[in-house]
Amino acid sequence: MHVCVPKGINAGFMSQPNFKDLSAVYINCTLKKSPKKSHTAGLMSVSQSIMEKEGVSIKEIRLVDHLVASGVYPDMKEYGWQTDEWPELFKTILSADILIIGTPIWLGEKSSEAQKLIERLYSMSGMKNEKGQYIYYGKVGGCIITGNEDGVKHCAMGILYSLQHIGYSIAPQADSGWIGEVGPGPSYLDKEANALNNDFTNRNTTFMTYNMLHLAKMLKNNDGYPSYGNSREQWDNGKRWGFDNPEYR
Amino acid sequence: MHVCVPKGINAGFMSQPNFKDLSAVYINCTLKKSPKKSHTAGLMSVSQSIMEKEGVSIKEIRLVDHLVASGVYPDMKEYGWQTDEWPELFKTILSADILIIGTPIWLGEKSSEAQKLIERLYSMSGMKNEKGQYIYYGKVGGCIITGNEDGVKHCAMGILYSLQHIGYSIAPQADSGWIGEVGPGPSYLDKEANALNNDFTNRNTTFMTYNMLHLAKMLKNNDGYPSYGNSREQWDNGKRWGFDNPEYR
Amino acid sequence: MHVCVPKGINAGFMSQPNFKDLSAVYINCTLKKSPKKSHTAGLMSVSQSIMEKEGVSIKEIRLVDHLVASGVYPDMKEYGWQTDEWPELFKTILSADILIIGTPIWLGEKSSEAQKLIERLYSMSGMKNEKGQYIYYGKVGGCIITGNEDGVKHCAMGILYSLQHIGYSIAPQADSGWIGEVGPGPSYLDKEANALNNDFTNRNTTFMTYNMLHLAKMLKNNDGYPSYGNSREQWDNGKRWGFDNPEYR
Amino acid sequence: MHVCVPKGINAGFMSQPNFKDLSAVYINCTLKKSPKKSHTAGLMSVSQSIMEKEGVSIKEIRLVDHLVASGVYPDMKEYGWQTDEWPELFKTILSADILIIGTPIWLGEKSSEAQKLIERLYSMSGMKNEKGQYIYYGKVGGCIITGNEDGVKHCAMGILYSLQHIGYSIAPQADSGWIGEVGPGPSYLDKEANALNNDFTNRNTTFMTYNMLHLAKMLKNNDGYPSYGNSREQWDNGKRWGFDNPEYR
Repeated sequence: MHVCVPKGINAGFMSQPNFKDLSAVYINCTLKKSPKKSHTAGLMSVSQSIMEKEGVSIKEIRLVDHLVASGVYPDMKEYGWQTDEWPELFKTILSADILIIGTPIWLGEKSSEAQKLIERLYSMSGMKNEKGQYIYYGKVGGCIITGNEDGVKHCAMGILYSLQHIGYSIAPQADSGWIGEVGPGPSYLDKEANALNNDFTNRNTTFMTYNMLHLAKMLKNNDGYPSYGNSREQWDNGKRWGFDNPEYR
Repeated sequence: MHVCVPKGINAGFMSQPNFKDLSAVYINCTLKKSPKKSHTAGLMSVSQSIMEKEGVSIKEIRLVDHLVASGVYPDMKEYGWQTDEWPELFKTILSADILIIGTPIWLGEKSSEAQKLIERLYSMSGMKNEKGQYIYYGKVGGCIITGNEDGVKHCAMGILYSLQHIGYSIAPQADSGWIGEVGPGPSYLDKEANALNNDFTNRNTTFMTYNMLHLAKMLKNNDGYPSYGNSREQWDNGKRWGFDNPEYR
Repeated sequence: MHVCVPKGINAGFMSQPNFKDLSAVYINCTLKKSPKKSHTAGLMSVSQSIMEKEGVSIKEIRLVDHLVASGVYPDMKEYGWQTDEWPELFKTILSADILIIGTPIWLGEKSSEAQKLIERLYSMSGMKNEKGQYIYYGKVGGCIITGNEDGVKHCAMGILYSLQHIGYSIAPQADSGWIGEVGPGPSYLDKEANALNNDFTNRNTTFMTYNMLHLAKMLKNNDGYPSYGNSREQWDNGKRWGFDNPEYR
Repeated sequence: MHVCVPKGINAGFMSQPNFKDLSAVYINCTLKKSPKKSHTAGLMSVSQSIMEKEGVSIKEIRLVDHLVASGVYPDMKEYGWQTDEWPELFKTILSADILIIGTPIWLGEKSSEAQKLIERLYSMSGMKNEKGQYIYYGKVGGCIITGNEDGVKHCAMGILYSLQHIGYSIAPQADSGWIGEVGPGPSYLDKEANALNNDFTNRNTTFMTYNMLHLAKMLKNNDGYPSYGNSREQWDNGKRWGFDNPEYR
């Protein structure tokens, strides 16, 4: 395959980019099992609707519906757990170009399901791709957060940090959320919150979605990151590129 | 200009990418004024040395050496401060493709200088580029953190969150750091720490540096992000792309 | 009962305070089920050994050994979960004067089990004591954290915040932990870490344990907090004590 | 002095406790110099008004009005800074039983002034009281936080963590704050926010204020913490109380 585009067209003046070869998985880390109403699912649907219009393949997983073991190994059935649906779920995550983690806020923190998801994503980080890079290189991550009073940014800090640390790339403004005024109050989908019409949240969700698509498209066109300077395999074999041990400088 | 590269060459098999048209600014948020020894500067130099070998133009700013006012406006001289060197420093930041924030850790947190830097970066976020996007779109951010006992990840969470929130893109593993064992102890440049020879920190610093270069190069070749779906100006003018108000769905 | 002690004796010069009427529960939020070795349990035992010598009644719960549902209600069996051992575990927590949460660190964060524990503690916060105060008033909380590289303080921030927010009191230096140098490495109980002999961790664990005992003793002698100024029931009934609505000042 | 009170009276049924011998200092970490309007000062005044009615001596410091150097030493004039008002400010802090840190929120974080304050408080933590304990033992800390959209809990996590880590005690629900709905919007004192009449914030501020007073009173009556088990001086001299080195168990 050969990528050859006039720069102007690729860059900002094209009326409609083509995202049809991209795929995204949304993981909802609500504490409520289906079919209970999830406010986080409500906000995620705003982003999903954009992706669907752009022809992106999307999947949604509600983590708490699945028997996912606790632990930091790829398959906890090998560590004394009777069941562990993680290996199956991981296939879906690995096959998608984009991962969006949705979470409610409890006491200012992401949910225990979101933390469990991060532990299990991390448990696979020993895997390498065909270039010897960590397995999540070339993928794009983001988050969607809902609560009724406080904590969007704090939850996003932890989630986005984890995603980039294991190899995801983070597009500009890849966090979107909704919260109401301080104190208990209505949640995202509650009519009295009038949240569906919140211009700030709608705009952020739109920009996040498109920025993730642009970055994922760019990375796909580029076949991910070159392995020059970041291959764990090559480092372990002694390759150092421009690195110079400071001890001997 | 016309970008036309065989994909294979651009992507992972090229022996030596060309980063010579890139520029980076390192901002050291140590609390110590020059010429005092900064351990954070020590670790930053590992990354800088790689960039120099690759022909990248680099600049370093030690924030505490400058009279930077506190506040959240572009020029605090207009708000009662006698001096404010921020507007000058900002020109350097704006002209660079890459921003790397270095900070020491105090009580598990980034320094007050680092927080002041973020406040001032944020103070410019009302600016838009020629596509109507936030001014930092198309740039790449990362962080380098040193302490003697604990807190690299927590500091990175806050810094990387802020950078992506104002428009920077975050490459994989864009945080690098060094800390010693729990409790007081030697710092990065202290001989007894033997930190300069720490393979983990050296590898992370190398990968971080190259991942930022690859992403910055990719974004430069692509002329940043297309404005489709993320232009604040166009949103304010009523443009919605694939967004559909959920209230009316 | 009548508390009458010469102040000097109560205060700092008494050779041996009497903690025999106090009780403490340690909740280990490791991801490993019993009987797997838990490094967090290892460090908790240092604190437990002190408590035992002082005659304090202690209990230990390894949360992952129990079928604790996810959710934010007192008993999730009423919300579609088949089993939920939380109501039983809560009795133990409620009967203890002191709660110590132990957690490992994963990607710089407390474990998903620790977050689940906090969600469930929070789920009971609608309960009031006989003075109309939140149910945890008069109790003392702390945390013990182990990892192999980074994050003690960040985990402690979240745990101690949650504990005080639901009504626990926090004694000075109520966080103790152990981590090794940056990067993967031996864990607390691994011989090569030589962590058991770490003076910093041993001292912090000792001070934490005694400070919690002193504060719990003081609160017990005082029958907890007076309800003057903090009774939710009285506030809801219109009582305001010295509060004056700022809108009408 | 001899403390001898019937427990019932001390504990929850007394109509009016006597807080007249207590003192509190409020430090406002707004980025705005006096006399600019500070929303954080607005919310702090709700707590101050209660304290004044209860006869507590209070002082308020707006940190940004003072030339406080950056650094982690007691007096930065000894480290190359021309002026440093910290040593004077510290006398006020040290003489008060209660410290309340007020901060605005910027990008989900406490202000750089708040971080500088914590760095300077920490810089004094080598000092010991007459019992050989850290200098802040026996004092009570809390925080008051305002923003227009998000981050009260995250800011409180960092501030309360730091305070307890250096020796302050944290009373139940020692964090109070106000934020509006997600996105830019009116601030605490802006009429259209109607924040002065927010029952949740008013109640939390009241409870926080009284809980801090109760705990400070209890600690004062008790002459702080007994030194049994927490004296740094005695530990350094080999005293171990009930601690037993786990390596030799």
